[in-house]
Amino acid sequence: MTDTTGWRDLGFARLDTSRAARTGDPEVVYGEGKNPEQTVALLRTLHDEHPERAVLATRLGDAARTAVRTTFGTAADIDDLARTVTLGPLPQPSGRVAVVAAGTSDRPVAAEAVVTARVFGAEADMVTDVGVAGIHRLLAVRDDLDRADCLVVVAGMEGALPSVVGGLTGVPLVAVPTSIGYGASLGGLAALLAMLNSCAPGVVVVNIDNGFGAGVHAARVARQAGEHR
Amino acid sequence: MTDTTGWRDLGFARLDTSRAARTGDPEVVYGEGKNPEQTVALLRTLHDEHPERAVLATRLGDAARTAVRTTFGTAADIDDLARTVTLGPLPQPSGRVAVVAAGTSDRPVAAEAVVTARVFGAEADMVTDVGVAGIHRLLAVRDDLDRADCLVVVAGMEGALPSVVGGLTGVPLVAVPTSIGYGASLGGLAALLAMLNSCAPGVVVVNIDNGFGAGVHAARVARQAGEHR
Amino acid sequence: MTDTTGWRDLGFARLDTSRAARTGDPEVVYGEGKNPEQTVALLRTLHDEHPERAVLATRLGDAARTAVRTTFGTAADIDDLARTVTLGPLPQPSGRVAVVAAGTSDRPVAAEAVVTARVFGAEADMVTDVGVAGIHRLLAVRDDLDRADCLVVVAGMEGALPSVVGGLTGVPLVAVPTSIGYGASLGGLAALLAMLNSCAPGVVVVNIDNGFGAGVHAARVARQAGEHR
Amino acid sequence: MTDTTGWRDLGFARLDTSRAARTGDPEVVYGEGKNPEQTVALLRTLHDEHPERAVLATRLGDAARTAVRTTFGTAADIDDLARTVTLGPLPQPSGRVAVVAAGTSDRPVAAEAVVTARVFGAEADMVTDVGVAGIHRLLAVRDDLDRADCLVVVAGMEGALPSVVGGLTGVPLVAVPTSIGYGASLGGLAALLAMLNSCAPGVVVVNIDNGFGAGVHAARVARQAGEHR
Amino acid sequence: MTDTTGWRDLGFARLDTSRAARTGDPEVVYGEGKNPEQTVALLRTLHDEHPERAVLATRLGDAARTAVRTTFGTAADIDDLARTVTLGPLPQPSGRVAVVAAGTSDRPVAAEAVVTARVFGAEADMVTDVGVAGIHRLLAVRDDLDRADCLVVVAGMEGALPSVVGGLTGVPLVAVPTSIGYGASLGGLAALLAMLNSCAPGVVVVNIDNGFGAGVHAARVARQAGEHR
Amino acid sequence: MTDTTGWRDLGFARLDTSRAARTGDPEVVYGEGKNPEQTVALLRTLHDEHPERAVLATRLGDAARTAVRTTFGTAADIDDLARTVTLGPLPQPSGRVAVVAAGTSDRPVAAEAVVTARVFGAEADMVTDVGVAGIHRLLAVRDDLDRADCLVVVAGMEGALPSVVGGLTGVPLVAVPTSIGYGASLGGLAALLAMLNSCAPGVVVVNIDNGFGAGVHAARVARQAGEHR
Amino acid sequence: MTDTTGWRDLGFARLDTSRAARTGDPEVVYGEGKNPEQTVALLRTLHDEHPERAVLATRLGDAARTAVRTTFGTAADIDDLARTVTLGPLPQPSGRVAVVAAGTSDRPVAAEAVVTARVFGAEADMVTDVGVAGIHRLLAVRDDLDRADCLVVVAGMEGALPSVVGGLTGVPLVAVPTSIGYGASLGGLAALLAMLNSCAPGVVVVNIDNGFGAGVHAARVARQAGEHR
Amino acid sequence: MTDTTGWRDLGFARLDTSRAARTGDPEVVYGEGKNPEQTVALLRTLHDEHPERAVLATRLGDAARTAVRTTFGTAADIDDLARTVTLGPLPQPSGRVAVVAAGTSDRPVAAEAVVTARVFGAEADMVTDVGVAGIHRLLAVRDDLDRADCLVVVAGMEGALPSVVGGLTGVPLVAVPTSIGYGASLGGLAALLAMLNSCAPGVVVVNIDNGFGAGVHAARVARQAGEHR
Repeated sequence: MTDTTGWRDLGFARLDTSRAARTGDPEVVYGEGKNPEQTVALLRTLHDEHPERAVLATRLGDAARTAVRTTFGTAADIDDLARTVTLGPLPQPSGRVAVVAAGTSDRPVAAEAVVTARVFGAEADMVTDVGVAGIHRLLAVRDDLDRADCLVVVAGMEGALPSVVGGLTGVPLVAVPTSIGYGASLGGLAALLAMLNSCAPGVVVVNIDNGFGAGVHAARVARQAGEHR
Repeated sequence: MTDTTGWRDLGFARLDTSRAARTGDPEVVYGEGKNPEQTVALLRTLHDEHPERAVLATRLGDAARTAVRTTFGTAADIDDLARTVTLGPLPQPSGRVAVVAAGTSDRPVAAEAVVTARVFGAEADMVTDVGVAGIHRLLAVRDDLDRADCLVVVAGMEGALPSVVGGLTGVPLVAVPTSIGYGASLGGLAALLAMLNSCAPGVVVVNIDNGFGAGVHAARVARQAGEHR
Repeated sequence: MTDTTGWRDLGFARLDTSRAARTGDPEVVYGEGKNPEQTVALLRTLHDEHPERAVLATRLGDAARTAVRTTFGTAADIDDLARTVTLGPLPQPSGRVAVVAAGTSDRPVAAEAVVTARVFGAEADMVTDVGVAGIHRLLAVRDDLDRADCLVVVAGMEGALPSVVGGLTGVPLVAVPTSIGYGASLGGLAALLAMLNSCAPGVVVVNIDNGFGAGVHAARVARQAGEHR
Repeated sequence: MTDTTGWRDLGFARLDTSRAARTGDPEVVYGEGKNPEQTVALLRTLHDEHPERAVLATRLGDAARTAVRTTFGTAADIDDLARTVTLGPLPQPSGRVAVVAAGTSDRPVAAEAVVTARVFGAEADMVTDVGVAGIHRLLAVRDDLDRADCLVVVAGMEGALPSVVGGLTGVPLVAVPTSIGYGASLGGLAALLAMLNSCAPGVVVVNIDNGFGAGVHAARVARQAGEHR
Repeated sequence: MTDTTGWRDLGFARLDTSRAARTGDPEVVYGEGKNPEQTVALLRTLHDEHPERAVLATRLGDAARTAVRTTFGTAADIDDLARTVTLGPLPQPSGRVAVVAAGTSDRPVAAEAVVTARVFGAEADMVTDVGVAGIHRLLAVRDDLDRADCLVVVAGMEGALPSVVGGLTGVPLVAVPTSIGYGASLGGLAALLAMLNSCAPGVVVVNIDNGFGAGVHAARVARQAGEHR
Repeated sequence: MTDTTGWRDLGFARLDTSRAARTGDPEVVYGEGKNPEQTVALLRTLHDEHPERAVLATRLGDAARTAVRTTFGTAADIDDLARTVTLGPLPQPSGRVAVVAAGTSDRPVAAEAVVTARVFGAEADMVTDVGVAGIHRLLAVRDDLDRADCLVVVAGMEGALPSVVGGLTGVPLVAVPTSIGYGASLGGLAALLAMLNSCAPGVVVVNIDNGFGAGVHAARVARQAGEHR
Repeated sequence: MTDTTGWRDLGFARLDTSRAARTGDPEVVYGEGKNPEQTVALLRTLHDEHPERAVLATRLGDAARTAVRTTFGTAADIDDLARTVTLGPLPQPSGRVAVVAAGTSDRPVAAEAVVTARVFGAEADMVTDVGVAGIHRLLAVRDDLDRADCLVVVAGMEGALPSVVGGLTGVPLVAVPTSIGYGASLGGLAALLAMLNSCAPGVVVVNIDNGFGAGVHAARVARQAGEHR
Repeated sequence: MTDTTGWRDLGFARLDTSRAARTGDPEVVYGEGKNPEQTVALLRTLHDEHPERAVLATRLGDAARTAVRTTFGTAADIDDLARTVTLGPLPQPSGRVAVVAAGTSDRPVAAEAVVTARVFGAEADMVTDVGVAGIHRLLAVRDDLDRADCLVVVAGMEGALPSVVGGLTGVPLVAVPTSIGYGASLGGLAALLAMLNSCAPGVVVVNIDNGFGAGVHAARVARQAGEHR
């Protein structure tokens, strides 16, 4: 393992170790396409570089989560719904993110957003099953939404939820399409297109199933708001 | 002009004159791609075949509507918003269709659905500007929707309105995507896909901007309900 | 399990328990992406909420159907072709739905439509193998189609059947594209596009393989017609 | 103008003059994107190379047809519906092609197929307005179809006609999708996909609006059959 | 098993038994999505209806081919490359089909075309590995191609072979795109689009991997030519 | 003109007048598809409802901007690059938005974002021509970017700029794809897809050319940050 | 006009003046979307920065070419087919580029490649009308191709030419798809996909109609080869 | 095994043995879709034809690599990352190719390009993890890139790296999109489109994951440059 200015070479990958200095947040391990050994090695290196604050790995399969559990024991915080691992203490939260999910099947993506937002420094919680076909469930939590500094709205199928939420409140809102659906849902493209065409002003969108990206943006927005309070 | 069993040959087209006998409703003139003379000739032939009830022409450009006005005078009922013409007395309505449009720009398609539903034998009226980004406008007309025998819900952009309406009422509902939008709305495909993926059960869909098709289906559904009352 | 006004929280999902009050029909369990335990729990809760009428679960895999059989025994009505389960007594049927399938491989989707239409309160039966390449088989059942209050027409490949049926009869018609085909059938998109572009007026369409959605719409249309007879 | 073995250089284009020797039929002028002068020059050169048999130009706009009329007078046979010009005597026909068009708007493409088939050496005639929504019109001409050596079936919108015809007869059948339609017809792609997925065995397809290509294939098939009679 | 005029009901399917009378060739068993028992039952029924001439089943998996072997023994002619089975004596061939394949991986589709053409009454043989990147291999077989009554040209990847062959000979030509390729070949769509846009006049196309459809068309074209010799 | 609780009916449209109360910002006039008279009437109504703060119209063509100039004179602030009009005093800015454009042709979209951000209550300025093919121009303005509370990054063609900016700074970042490009840029879809797949964490995206949407989100994010300073 | 290190600010655009130092070749003016005055101003600035070598503007409409002619007179070299302008002396050529075009309609794109290659320092000439449907025309120029240091192969429709050329010679080859075609050519996407899937090894591709990009790459490849001879 | 002029027939395939004479480089074995025995037989035949220089097989699965190891022992050079095998001595390198990969997951494709470039006669090495979200890693290797005769730039997700590299250097550059990504990366199509739309002049592109094609082109470009030094 060679150490170089700005990155660390692990043989199979070079970690960007100056990212926290540049952007305020360390690099994150994206687990898809990596074997358990690589995931563990990357997590350990990241943790060594940033012992004072939690580091994150996402999209971990069963084998990778088991390897993490064996290696780090209770030091690692494993979320089986979100398929994430965090290592090290969470930062003191600043600002609040509310993650809203349309249906039961959207929960894993919503959970990834919640975990990510916490690692990136914001308070975060989740409201689920407030899909537009039962609008009364959404109206019941409206005050909750208004109190957040940033909203993450997760939906599959027709992806209509962000438009309805965005018409009820002016809180900054990130929409996350999920790959939930069948037939002409095209693996989430239908929901993605719907969200990009939202008639509610100011709705911004991330890639299909990208709870992580939504969590990063929302945490940055929320903690900016919180820092100044 | 040769007359043959089941159709009439006008040289440039053969009209299906047995359609009313087979399906209960006469053939309709689709104006796009036809010149004003052809449109007038087809309308006249249809009217001659069915003098007792209104016949319909849709998608008429300015020139065709002017030619119709010149030829038939006040006998023709011309709707400039819907771009339709009807000739002959409307049938006695049976059952009621409510056409709901999300935004101002969806009105022409909604108007085509209203005219069509009337020609096909149902009572029909229109509610507009009840888009999902201002859900209070929709909740205010909820009872109106419940009283209909069939709903036609017209929306462009993200096409979310049918899902919300379909969650509020169990009245049979036909969704019409419109080509309103820009960027990745893809000429209405985004709204079409959203409606096909609606999480509200029983939403059925017609082609982009096809107010005519929605009107036909809705009228048939409504008049069946009305006939038996 | 917490009970709240309008929904029931099962931990992994919140059931919309006021849907029957709003729309006339209870929530339905969509089995895809749920494990057998969740499916059984949701079915039981729905049944408890609506003991007087059948509740429905669709898209159940082998394991889920086995779990249902073990749990509810003969109280559950399991359809292996349609991959559905119903629990509780079917409503007294009102109106009649005829489900027409083009080919042998379209039968599971057609069966889902039949079961759904019955749970939603209509009489329903199925006619199969009447594809357009052997038009004599369709012409032989024409009177049958005319007697229905709503038609569901199921076809894959080129999706031509709804156009032919829609030219033979004026009964309200819902088209269902199936994912049957290969090469450039694009998982049913070819049939879906064909049906959206049908030259027969009034053909409405649901998502690929969505026998359930077609069944809901058809039952609502049929029972409206039937109720008034 | 330089003459070289196998082609002729006109400055703006090099004509393949050995094509007739290689494939039995001379090169054809495709008028789209060429100005009237170029079209006239290419036609004249082709005619000089093949004075004994008709040469063909397709897709000619109004200006090009006028230029041809001015230059060649009555020697040129101009078809305004098909937008084609032929120069020189048609070959003695061998075999018979029947061109079938679904709707009025499909006529120009069908006419291009008819003209092409004649220039390529077959007898050809046209049957129109036999769309699938009025199946009785098609059944009335069934014997006519059976007597052809090759069928060309032209349809837009849902493109269902080739499947129905292909189920009625075993005559070799070429399907031509047209760009007629709106909304999700996608400029003829819906009809193209439908025809590629036809459930009738042996249906072959050409590009959207490509009456010319269908005419070439059909003429070759028909004249082979006719030559041996 | 009920016998009805024009079809036979096997419970899970209704066989079109009047197809041979209508189109000259019997129905064919398409094996995909059917279990071995169904395939065997359908083959047996077809064979009973048409004992005097070979009947065909295509797209048979390993299990289905084993079941056929067990049931019919040497009476069935099984082609493992083409994944087809024929039962009964081949018709006396009339006319000749040449099937040309670009690469090694295109052979299974080419073999399906060969078997089909023979069952449908033509002589058929195969030329392989004549892809356009080694044009000398194609030029070497040019006379062979000229002697055929119909060509089937099979190619994946960029699908260029039909254009080159179509420029060398005037024999009627059916192009078959295959799903061979990777990346942006899109499962054969790239080759399909290329073939539809061929600059060689008269190239007609079937669906991706549809050797069967090409074989049917080619046989009908060839035997027409042959019958009259 | 009828006044109703929550909206105002202008005959051709119903304005949502309670939006400011619900979301903190008034409704905006979207000029596309409206005639100059409608645009003027909507602007006037909005201004009457909210005399104390600027109201906004976007996507105004030349005729609409002229009509606004004639009607409101110098009271209206017209931006010809952004194609926007504002009427009434801008709010006191809170927080700062920096809008970054890759190329010269992206300027109109960037200008729309700037105007929108100002109307929605943030300070906003623009940096242009910092495309990734001349990375030195971007590095020169890096400190400027770090000082913003929210970034809007506008780019067409390959849409790479947000990824590079997102790797240099942790400021919340909204990416706007533009329809600039040709060939396989697909009207901006290439840039849109690239931005959705950005390897920089936390990049969020709006629809193609939607400078307005980006401006709304960015202003809300920035003013939250600014309000608490 | 402000002068800054590395770029020049013209108000409406900032020219990258250090590009030649970084990459060896100056910035180029892309004329699409710019008015004649902007094009002239950019050309003049580029010429002032690089008086010793030709600078290039591409995609100029008629008005822009007229403005250039008026401003620079005979100092500007205007190519009406390629729609380009060069200003200043061409560099001494090193290495040779051969540009090959399939059809007459591909000539403008081929001409753009030729002009670009010359401005970027290579000798360049053009061979046209060697499409694959007349392979003899291509074989006749084979030696010519072999003598080049880099080939640019331009084709629309099915885009087959690069595969055939790439099988005849090992010279580095850049393929350029053009938007020539109709129906399912999808504006050149069919040719683009075909070229990306070429079975000839080492074929590289640029965007649709991008003769400029191909010319830049080919010139760089050729002059590297030439410099060392 | 029959030997014929220009090819060798192995029964299941015909090897193009005159390719080296025509293009300077022998045929290559593409392993996908071939079984281990076929791969070994093809490699052996190629090696027999070209004993003096390395021959190459790509896309070998585990079983094929094991079969090669068993058959040829240490004579075969197997690269498990690149999934390639070479047999015979590498040619003396001429010119230098630098392969640059954006992320860890792009390494296998980059390795295929390196191996291919070496077999095709150039020196080649690899630089990895220089993605655009950490631009400092790329700037650190800039001199390295400038010294190459051809660059291969490999990237997935948003595919931005070639644009940034192409703005830093004028070395000929081949871009390779990889299928790395999720959601709307569409299996690498997003990166492919981005690269085709690169704002850096002269970027050329190969198919998704096609390290082989990029290696062939780059080696030919580099060795031309090297040969003349």
